[in-house]
Amino acid sequence: MKTIRISLKDDSYDVYIGKGLLERVGELLQPILPSSRVMLVADPIVYRLYGQKCIDSLCSAGFQVAESLIKVGEESKSLEQAQKLYEAALAAGLDRKSTFLALGGGVTGDLTGFVAATYLRGTGYVQLPTTLLAQVDSSVGGKVAVNLPQGKNLVGAFHQPLAVLADTSVLFSLPARHIKAGLGEVIKYGIIWDEVFFNYLEENISCLLTNPPEPTVLAKAIARSVEIKAEIVGRDEKEGNSRRVLNFGHTYGHALEAATNYQAYYHGEAVLAGMAMAAKLA
Amino acid sequence: MKTIRISLKDDSYDVYIGKGLLERVGELLQPILPSSRVMLVADPIVYRLYGQKCIDSLCSAGFQVAESLIKVGEESKSLEQAQKLYEAALAAGLDRKSTFLALGGGVTGDLTGFVAATYLRGTGYVQLPTTLLAQVDSSVGGKVAVNLPQGKNLVGAFHQPLAVLADTSVLFSLPARHIKAGLGEVIKYGIIWDEVFFNYLEENISCLLTNPPEPTVLAKAIARSVEIKAEIVGRDEKEGNSRRVLNFGHTYGHALEAATNYQAYYHGEAVLAGMAMAAKLA
Repeated sequence: MKTIRISLKDDSYDVYIGKGLLERVGELLQPILPSSRVMLVADPIVYRLYGQKCIDSLCSAGFQVAESLIKVGEESKSLEQAQKLYEAALAAGLDRKSTFLALGGGVTGDLTGFVAATYLRGTGYVQLPTTLLAQVDSSVGGKVAVNLPQGKNLVGAFHQPLAVLADTSVLFSLPARHIKAGLGEVIKYGIIWDEVFFNYLEENISCLLTNPPEPTVLAKAIARSVEIKAEIVGRDEKEGNSRRVLNFGHTYGHALEAATNYQAYYHGEAVLAGMAMAAKLA
Repeated sequence: MKTIRISLKDDSYDVYIGKGLLERVGELLQPILPSSRVMLVADPIVYRLYGQKCIDSLCSAGFQVAESLIKVGEESKSLEQAQKLYEAALAAGLDRKSTFLALGGGVTGDLTGFVAATYLRGTGYVQLPTTLLAQVDSSVGGKVAVNLPQGKNLVGAFHQPLAVLADTSVLFSLPARHIKAGLGEVIKYGIIWDEVFFNYLEENISCLLTNPPEPTVLAKAIARSVEIKAEIVGRDEKEGNSRRVLNFGHTYGHALEAATNYQAYYHGEAVLAGMAMAAKLA
């Protein structure tokens, strides 16, 4: 297991990267969370794959676990879905010291983080990202949000998680297209921040595009991506200026996603295309 | 005009207290706000009384002013109403540097503050409180929220305003019952924090209960209340512990409000009764 510290002024935390972390989630979170009451949030697909494993581990470590399922897909990032989560949390007796656990991809993490940022004026949450994209990007940095009919991420907060557990085992069951989409953001870190890393990715791209990807190269790619994101976010937590470098490829990427109604491209694919378009324009 | 500084770790700001401040809102905010685009939020009753005055002053100072009206009463503190404000803000072109102006009582301030805390992950807002209760309590301290069907203030944030302008002129047009309700919170500050202030209030209570109240005594009561709240909030911005002293009378008070469906008592009246009940129990 590799640990990367996200050093911020007030709310520093660790990102743990390694195999089989979901089976150890209870033991890993036990020293970190302020109380034993937690609510696990996931969509039914992810829940079927990893829900029970997490719950078993949490219960063994003494946590009292409530669960709340959300629909698969981007439309769950809405105020209506947030309201359902608030109400489920109230029904389960979550108080200000309780913790939300976001098990899934970017949609689950963004929504759950927003709910945690605003439930009872702010509670803790933990990211348990299950896609490559979420592990290298959305689970780190505290940008949480829901969408409005007018556009993505228009309502949200900067609210840092208490911890991020990136279990790399789960990536080996992902379809190849998901991995490729996640690599879009990985390559972005190489381009915007670290030439050596970019060259490493270029040399090893074939090991990453096999199905399943080569574990050592993949683990290194994830860890280096998180380190770079940590460095950028540590310098500019609330996107005053320098953090915007992370948005490379996102102007065209978002436009591409919107124009195709968020149906045709995965986010990472759109970012890849967006970077190519931005580079061409430049 | 009296100025009281709310000194916080990151987001310090000033509370201005005095006569005729709404007529000078543009000139007073001009040096404080990060951009010239603002949105004024009010209910129709308050808007009819003071809306045009504010807009004239803001326009004279070079601000571009959009407006959004909300329904009178507690039911406006909802996620549905928040969504309408987000959409109005988008339509008016408000960006991250724009500012929401909350003109009204606690409902308008809490709702507008919550919208500002979450719109585009956080924009600025200014409190322009028009009730005694809002001037001495809810406009200061950054506790913003909306309600859920299950209870009050269950979804919210700690988000400090950029400034508070308490125009004492507006209080002289309030019904006597409103003043009395606001005095509930004023007396609370005396009890929890400052015996000298409490004695002063006791000696001068008749000047405060005349209609209209005696201006000098009222101005002193408001200023001292805000000073006390500033001191308490400065020590414990996010209600970790000591800030809870502000909740004196609120346990029974909230129960009384809930049991009567928020129809029978003004908040300050319920707090007065709640303090009496708490004192009796003690």
